[in-house]
Amino acid sequence: MGKIANIPDSNDPRVVIIGAGFAGLKLARKLHKDKFQVVLLDRYNYHQFQPLLYQVATAGLEPSAISFPLRKIFQHQKHLHFRIAEVKRIDTDKNTIETDIGNLSYDYVVVAIGATTNYFGLQNVEANSLSMKSVPDALYIRNSILQHFESALNYETPEEIQHLLNVVIVGGGPTGVELAGALAEMKKNILPKDYPELDFSIMQIHLYEAGGRILTSLTEKSAAKALGYLKTLGVQVHLNTAVKDYDGQIVQVSDGSTVNSRTLIWAAGVKASTVLGFSVNAYGAANRLIVDEFNRVAGHEDIFAIGDVCQMITEDYPRGHPQVAQVAIQQGRLLAKNLLRLQLKKPLSAFHYIDRGSMATIGRNLAVANIFKTSWHGFTAWAIWSFVHLMSIVGVRNRFIIFINWAWNYVTYDQALRLLIKPKGK
Amino acid sequence: MGKIANIPDSNDPRVVIIGAGFAGLKLARKLHKDKFQVVLLDRYNYHQFQPLLYQVATAGLEPSAISFPLRKIFQHQKHLHFRIAEVKRIDTDKNTIETDIGNLSYDYVVVAIGATTNYFGLQNVEANSLSMKSVPDALYIRNSILQHFESALNYETPEEIQHLLNVVIVGGGPTGVELAGALAEMKKNILPKDYPELDFSIMQIHLYEAGGRILTSLTEKSAAKALGYLKTLGVQVHLNTAVKDYDGQIVQVSDGSTVNSRTLIWAAGVKASTVLGFSVNAYGAANRLIVDEFNRVAGHEDIFAIGDVCQMITEDYPRGHPQVAQVAIQQGRLLAKNLLRLQLKKPLSAFHYIDRGSMATIGRNLAVANIFKTSWHGFTAWAIWSFVHLMSIVGVRNRFIIFINWAWNYVTYDQALRLLIKPKGK
Repeated sequence: MGKIANIPDSNDPRVVIIGAGFAGLKLARKLHKDKFQVVLLDRYNYHQFQPLLYQVATAGLEPSAISFPLRKIFQHQKHLHFRIAEVKRIDTDKNTIETDIGNLSYDYVVVAIGATTNYFGLQNVEANSLSMKSVPDALYIRNSILQHFESALNYETPEEIQHLLNVVIVGGGPTGVELAGALAEMKKNILPKDYPELDFSIMQIHLYEAGGRILTSLTEKSAAKALGYLKTLGVQVHLNTAVKDYDGQIVQVSDGSTVNSRTLIWAAGVKASTVLGFSVNAYGAANRLIVDEFNRVAGHEDIFAIGDVCQMITEDYPRGHPQVAQVAIQQGRLLAKNLLRLQLKKPLSAFHYIDRGSMATIGRNLAVANIFKTSWHGFTAWAIWSFVHLMSIVGVRNRFIIFINWAWNYVTYDQALRLLIKPKGK
Repeated sequence: MGKIANIPDSNDPRVVIIGAGFAGLKLARKLHKDKFQVVLLDRYNYHQFQPLLYQVATAGLEPSAISFPLRKIFQHQKHLHFRIAEVKRIDTDKNTIETDIGNLSYDYVVVAIGATTNYFGLQNVEANSLSMKSVPDALYIRNSILQHFESALNYETPEEIQHLLNVVIVGGGPTGVELAGALAEMKKNILPKDYPELDFSIMQIHLYEAGGRILTSLTEKSAAKALGYLKTLGVQVHLNTAVKDYDGQIVQVSDGSTVNSRTLIWAAGVKASTVLGFSVNAYGAANRLIVDEFNRVAGHEDIFAIGDVCQMITEDYPRGHPQVAQVAIQQGRLLAKNLLRLQLKKPLSAFHYIDRGSMATIGRNLAVANIFKTSWHGFTAWAIWSFVHLMSIVGVRNRFIIFINWAWNYVTYDQALRLLIKPKGK
């Protein structure tokens, strides 16, 4: 395969950024225009705001509300070249990356490819469950759940109907908790109105967590509060309980019980995404690329990894930083400075994570938030959560559209986007 | 196959409405609650507002803005049963409809299945072109065009790039004209900013019309005005010129010329959609079901057809009414009254079409409108067009979201939704 077309040679060093998630996007926006030629590669032509994916899955937001076209962000910027591409391998000897649209030499390469769902070797679960890592994933969950409700109308027995209505979620992190809460709100406020022919009181929403508590990024007290909210909303939470197997119909649970459900959403863990070209020694836990305090991949002066894909072992974080947006953004921002320092032959700055806290929304007016050393819950936490998420999203238009949708849904107790829009020909 | 599940027997006569487009939806909403059991069937779970499909295709609106969940419209209504279903056949002897989810007996059945793209037997065109009859179609066009722009970056020669940027549209009706205008606006205002690496001055937008003029539903003068607008925007309009063949690369035109284009959008004509069970004699021109002045299908007392699918031959409309939303809505409304009259054994009212006029938007501040006997153009027509379309759409929320999007796009000269959201696994 030839060279990627239309990327001119430049006197400035070429930085190839693989991935336009929180880490890669922040770096690309901060890299000094006059000092580098930037090549940004991603599988999609948009940046996605993952923290609100669950609202796309539960018909509260449109994909476009949490997605932002990358070309719009980089309009007019001639030093930056964006391409939709799948990176296959980094040839560290020849300083070249190999992609499905051609090869490209680099002065620096930054791996910011994020993480993907970890099924921990459960092949049946992987084959039959739904994941929640991308906009297409979230839309697929929305369509799948709505399709099951529609199909339920075509069955006569309460058992068959119940199996179509039930939803099982695995993983007590923010994704699993927020999804379970949003579904419970739908069950309460919308579904009985939409389907007067179905008895939604038989619908079960199960949340399984293998560990002893949900939301480990929050304090024990806040997590307990969140657990209480989930139970109040009717979610059946099972702690210290793992899902072992799933054939598309019956969920096998570690305590020997089973649940009949046509929907299993797997949010139980992630592993780093991979790109070929690194030795086995470069990898730490769950596929993560081991980096030093400057996010340099071990053994390479010109290769960096930032965000979910990397593992930086420090005194405070002996198993690496949490794989969350804040770490990714802070690493992207620092690397922009460090690349400039490298050019100016100045010493690099080490990464120090500033943990601003963590939060999760369970339902209407129900959230928990730890911000620096303070704890909040209920309506206050919910208001903080809403404000912080609204302010974090890229683009005034998206912010405005989300605000309108939230205000509308809040006032009307309704999620307006219950549309089963199937791909053409399906 | 058994009976469609969960539809109870009723003392009220059962009206089965096939299709929830403008005609079927109006009828379902107007049918008297206490007098009928209504079963509404559609392939989708939403009503789509077709007049704005072209804005979904050109990234100006989200699918959800012009789609409305049917269950939301009929919340709480226990006399109405909506099902996602594909109707295969009407057994007129046994008074039964046969669908993919089961069979159902009827007292009255109303065929409101609309129209589909007519390729006039051009099989290569059908295989290689894009159509514009549904929300999935429009999204497919959006994705396809954006994908071609992205791919263009991977080619070196101006010819290869041009073939990817070119768009050929066939059909000078409102769909073709509005689509051509919207693409020309994108070419002018957005694409050069998004793709500073591409020279969009080489992009050609062709509009082919086999007849002697565009927009035959408008006056000669208004159509001439619209033609002028298109030319000003840089659209190459070819009248009296038909597209003969297309292999996915080269468009063969009736005047012997060819155009190299990877995109051909076919909006040249429609034919009625079909359901099995009627004799050959029941069909008129372009598959349309022949109906009397009460929309009764010839030879059947209990079967009606309304909207685009039917052909009612009257003195004023010797070839049937135009296949537009206004006719469909007015026929749906009248049939609701006539079904009640039938029950009350009163004489039926004949259909008289009130033609309120026709309009088309070509671009920013550029539209033409004929309203009753008056003619408008330019900014005034554009404002009227915007207001009428906004007020015609179902649902306050959709109206509001569209208004926000239009206002945003108007002020920023931007269409925000340039997202290539592909189905999972593609």
